[in-house]
Parts: sequence; structure tokens; C-alpha cells
Amino acid sequence: MSTPPLLPLEDALRILRDAFPAPATAEVRADRDDPALDLSSMDGAALRASDGVAPRRVLGTRYAGDPPTLEVAPGTCVRIMTGAAVPPGADAVVPVEELEVRGDALVPVRPPRAGENIRPRAGQARAGDLLLPAGEPARAARVGLLAQVGMPVPPLARVKVGVVATGDELNAHPAPHQIRDSNGPMLEALAHALGADVRRLPALPDEPAAVRAFLEDLGDLGILLTSGGVSAGEKDHLPRVLADMGARILFHKIRLKPGKPMLTALLDGRIILGLPGNPVSSYINALMFLPVALAGLQGRRAPEPWKEGLLRAPVPNPGDRPLLHPCRRQGRDLDPLPSRGSADLVRLAQAEAFAWIPEGGLAAGPTRYLDVV
Amino acid sequence: MSTPPLLPLEDALRILRDAFPAPATAEVRADRDDPALDLSSMDGAALRASDGVAPRRVLGTRYAGDPPTLEVAPGTCVRIMTGAAVPPGADAVVPVEELEVRGDALVPVRPPRAGENIRPRAGQARAGDLLLPAGEPARAARVGLLAQVGMPVPPLARVKVGVVATGDELNAHPAPHQIRDSNGPMLEALAHALGADVRRLPALPDEPAAVRAFLEDLGDLGILLTSGGVSAGEKDHLPRVLADMGARILFHKIRLKPGKPMLTALLDGRIILGLPGNPVSSYINALMFLPVALAGLQGRRAPEPWKEGLLRAPVPNPGDRPLLHPCRRQGRDLDPLPSRGSADLVRLAQAEAFAWIPEGGLAAGPTRYLDVV
Repeated sequence: MSTPPLLPLEDALRILRDAFPAPATAEVRADRDDPALDLSSMDGAALRASDGVAPRRVLGTRYAGDPPTLEVAPGTCVRIMTGAAVPPGADAVVPVEELEVRGDALVPVRPPRAGENIRPRAGQARAGDLLLPAGEPARAARVGLLAQVGMPVPPLARVKVGVVATGDELNAHPAPHQIRDSNGPMLEALAHALGADVRRLPALPDEPAAVRAFLEDLGDLGILLTSGGVSAGEKDHLPRVLADMGARILFHKIRLKPGKPMLTALLDGRIILGLPGNPVSSYINALMFLPVALAGLQGRRAPEPWKEGLLRAPVPNPGDRPLLHPCRRQGRDLDPLPSRGSADLVRLAQAEAFAWIPEGGLAAGPTRYLDVV
Repeated sequence: MSTPPLLPLEDALRILRDAFPAPATAEVRADRDDPALDLSSMDGAALRASDGVAPRRVLGTRYAGDPPTLEVAPGTCVRIMTGAAVPPGADAVVPVEELEVRGDALVPVRPPRAGENIRPRAGQARAGDLLLPAGEPARAARVGLLAQVGMPVPPLARVKVGVVATGDELNAHPAPHQIRDSNGPMLEALAHALGADVRRLPALPDEPAAVRAFLEDLGDLGILLTSGGVSAGEKDHLPRVLADMGARILFHKIRLKPGKPMLTALLDGRIILGLPGNPVSSYINALMFLPVALAGLQGRRAPEPWKEGLLRAPVPNPGDRPLLHPCRRQGRDLDPLPSRGSADLVRLAQAEAFAWIPEGGLAAGPTRYLDVV
């Protein structure tokens, strides 16, 4: 049987990233000069450089936040702390390590240079300057900048993520021919750990009408994780139902083992991540694609998933797809676990990382890996 | 002035990691054989291998979750889907691709082998087998395993993180000698993005009594992030107050630029991350240490923070501490931004990554980096 070429993982990740519009963030401009006054960048004494190494009588102390009320006349100085406004008259700050105390005066150990250890007014930006253009991704540091210039800070929010398993074989009190739903709780824990506001929904039967009714009533969910129902089996209804509903299928099936049947779609502005039903496939695809979907909906940049490690033993890969292989990890060292396939939740629970093994296998040595969550 | 040797960053991270006890997770044992019955691993026909390539009359179809009620006698077969229990009498599953339809019968294109495409009962584990020892870190896949064997799943929870800025210079409607609190909102956004249940608290004045009263009443916080008050200035009260209260200081001051004054302490089972007051220092130390503290309190494994990138231009570092330098990032390529020091929130807001620059500087080429949040 000839197989159509499958979508490489990196292409699938890019397609999902590109499905989101550019962030709608506003530009950020300085509301005032930054700094708004000359500020000291050291703990020391604010003084006049032209007095050279002559002793200076101490007029007082200025801390960060104090108004610049003391006037530094020739032969005087003001003790000053980092971040405090430089008092009028002073044009240099000599650090405390370079000052000698003589009676009630301070004496610089060397001639000060005008301007030293002063962050000059508007040295960072002038009022009105563009600090950050519109369309920059949402980031914590951008929030700090908004606060600095007095712009409103966006409310903290979490993406609402629904988790639903499909399959007639799922039963909370299983007979021998049934199984408990393990993917649901696992994906719920994973999405929660990735920062989502997650909601687990009752498992769906393998009935197209039930699947469709469910998909028509997703409420305020931003992302739906489904597990199962995306392969080529007679009861794998999800691809057809989504297509019938007019969903935009971003991709279906990727060149990855485990995890090939992965389906991703946009439905009424929501992201549907149709994960395979096998636990390892389901977990790995959620680990790869959910952070991208979460970042996209939040206007964030999708994080780089790969880290560089060292495989400590060879891993064969006779198949025609790259393999993500479970490993224990110590620092950068990856010790491959004996894998027993994509149904093996025990190995999955033992894994601390998944190493990338290209077609043909990989000798011990460098490879990239994913950290588990 | 001679400086005592400062703690390297990796040592500081290890000290914080080691401050947490081993996870108190229970062992996980199989409650029943896994699989509990012989299951099909393919879509195809369940049949008797000993019938060779003779046609088999189809008795019916079995889906995942169906009870194994049909009996496969010689000359018969049952259509079967992946995950379905193999009916009694059958000892092999021939995939649909290797079956021909002849009238109302199915004919294997080659002689079946007994046992093929069957996941045998207890092939993964026997009832009572140890699947995961006690003390394994909390992980999403462990939750899946708990659900699989019918053990209770831990409730979803977020670590409560308080954020408080210190400094008399902070004012929401600042005079020229005052500034707005930008660290508070920034750290709040950062902690939220890292999955914390974050609460921002009113800024603290530079008064030891006020700082102490605040620290004595931390309620249900698991982690407190403070910014400012940890340097050697006259108003940097936090180290002394924490010591006076009997906190266990894990470390104070690290060999890193920016971020040297970093203080970390345990106080009544809570983690205090005393971040420097400068925005870049504050951000970078939170980015490094908060994930470790969050993981420690949740019984998770601290994530590996470093990724491997390629610096596209040399970055000097004349200082005596390693530098984390702000960069734009495209894939693995790191383009250094012109840095203007640790007070520069604009560069921080532009940065997409921080590249590790050892003492002496670094030429263009490989280096590790941190992704921003």
C-alpha cells in the first residue's frame, strides 16, 4: 500500500503558529523623560566636580524617592543613595568606596569627573519617544513597560481549555473488555501545568451525532483537546464531523511516531487539537501543540520546544517516521528507556524527556529533546 | 576593595532545588492485568491461524469496548477494530490490508501466524505489579497512570505567589523624583504565565518594622517575590529583617550580571525570592529561580532552563561576572540588542531571549540562552 507523504512535525508546528493573527498590542511611548531627573547610579556623595579633592561639608542625605530639595553649593555635598535625584548644584556622584570621612566633611580620594555616576535626565528616553512598536507579542516585560509609562496593564487571564476523551470502551468501573479514561485526567493535568484554565468534560461515545452535538456547544472554550477518534478506523468520526461542520482543517496526520493521526482544526475561532487515543501519542502531541495554541490565543510567542541533550545509548528506529523516544534525564544526559509502544502509559509515566530519533536510528551522542510536564 | 567570591548561578539553582524534600507521591501498582484481556492492535479480522488461507465466514464485528461474546469456530472470523477484545477461539488478527473479500467471507492473502497483532493479556503488567515507585515527581503522565489503575487523582492546584515591591520612590502618580512600580505588574505577569496563582500586594516602605510586620503575615502564600531592598544600601532592610526573624538564608548574592544582589530564604516553609530592584535584574532572577521554587512546592522536577542558540554577533563582557545579555531570537539565532544596563526596561521589553556571556565576552557562535516569558 503506498502512503501519501506525511507532514513533517516542524511544518505542522509552523502551520499552527501561522493560524493566529499578529498580536493586537498597542505601541508604547514614554509619558515623560526617563529618567525624569538626573539620578544617582551609586551610593555615595553628590558634589561639584570643580571642587576637586577639597573636603565637602555634608548637608544631608537623599534617598530614592526624596525630592531634590538640598542645594549643593561649592564646598558642600549631599550623601546620596542609588536611584535618588541628584540635588541642584551637584554634577557628580563619588561612590562611597572612594570617599574619606574627615570630621563632618567627606573628601574624594581623587578628583571627580563631571557627570560621573549620574544617569542623566532623558538618558533612556524623551517624553513621547516610541519605546515599543505595536504588534509586539504579550510578554511580562512589556507589562512592566506599560506600568512604567502609566498605560493600563492587561488583565491576567488563562485560556479556557476543554478536555474530552472519546471511545465506547471507556468506563469508570471497567469490565475486562473496557478501560478507564486515563487520557482525560492526564491531559487535564498537562494543560493545567501549561497554565490553562482547564475543564474536563464527560467522555463522548463513538457516535457522529453525539460528537457533532458536542462540538456545536463549546461555550467559552478557546481550545478543545480531544483524544481518540482521529485514526482511520470505522468509529473514528472526528475528521468527518469537523469537515461537515465547516471547520478549517489545519492538518491531519503528521510524520511522527508515536502521534501520526494528529488532527488540528479551527472551528468558529476555537482550536481543536484532535489527539490520537493512545496515551503516549496523545501526551506527546499535546506537549508539542498545546503550548503553541495557548501562546497563539494569548498573543504570546510560542516557546521553542527543543533542548539539546546527549543520548547515552543508541536507539534504533527501523520505521519511516522520526521517533520521540522516552528517556530518563540527568542534566543533559538522556538514558533511553526500553520502549513498549504507544499504549505504554507506564513508560510514559517514567519518562523525564523524549529524545528525537530520526529515521534509521541514532547512535549515542547529541540530539534534541523535549522535557515532560 | 577585595570582594568575597560570589556564588555561581548553577550552585544557587542547585541550592534552591535541594531545599525541597523529595516528592511524597505514593507508589502505583496495577489493579488488574494490563491489558485485562487479549486485545487487537489492528483493524482487521480475528481468526484461527490454523485455518491457513481458507475463506472465513464473518460472524460479526467487534469494536473497542465490546464484550468478547462471539465465538470463533474453525472456518469463521470476526471483524475487529483496534483495542477490541479478541473473541474466544481466535488466536490471530489479520490486518484489513491483508484480507480479500470473497462473497460473505474474508480470505487472508497469506497464512496467519498465531498471536500476530494481538496485545496479550498482562503483556504490559500483571495485577499487583509495581508500575511506578513512590517518590517519583508529580507529572501529567503519572496522573494518567493513577487514573488507569483507579487510584485517586491529585486535585489541580496552583501555588499561591505574592508579589511585593519595596521602595519609598514608588508612587502611582509620580512626581519627577518618583517612579511608578513597574516591577510589581511585571513580576505578577511573569508568575501568572509560569502557572502561579499570583496576588500583587501593596508596595512596602523602606522601614524595617513595616517589612517585618508584612513578613509575619503572609497568609497562605507559598512563595513571596519581593523586588528591591536586597543590596548593600542603607535602606536595604530585607536581609537583616529575614535573618532577625530566623529565616534560613539559602544564599545572598550570586555571580551574575545583572542580578547579583539576589537573596533566597526559607521562612516558615515559604520561599522568599528577594529580587533586586532594577527591572532587568528583577526579571532575570525571577525567570531563573521562580520555576525552580514552583516545581519544588508542587513536587515536580525543576525544568531545564537552558536552550542552545547561536549568537550572531560578538558580545563583550569586561566585568568579573557572567552576563545574561538581551537578544532578539529567530529560531536558534540570537541577535544581541545594544544593552543599556539593568535599569533599561525598554530593552528588557524588546528582548526575546537572554544569551549567556561568560567573563571576557563571547564571539559569534554557540551559546546557551533563556527564553523570556
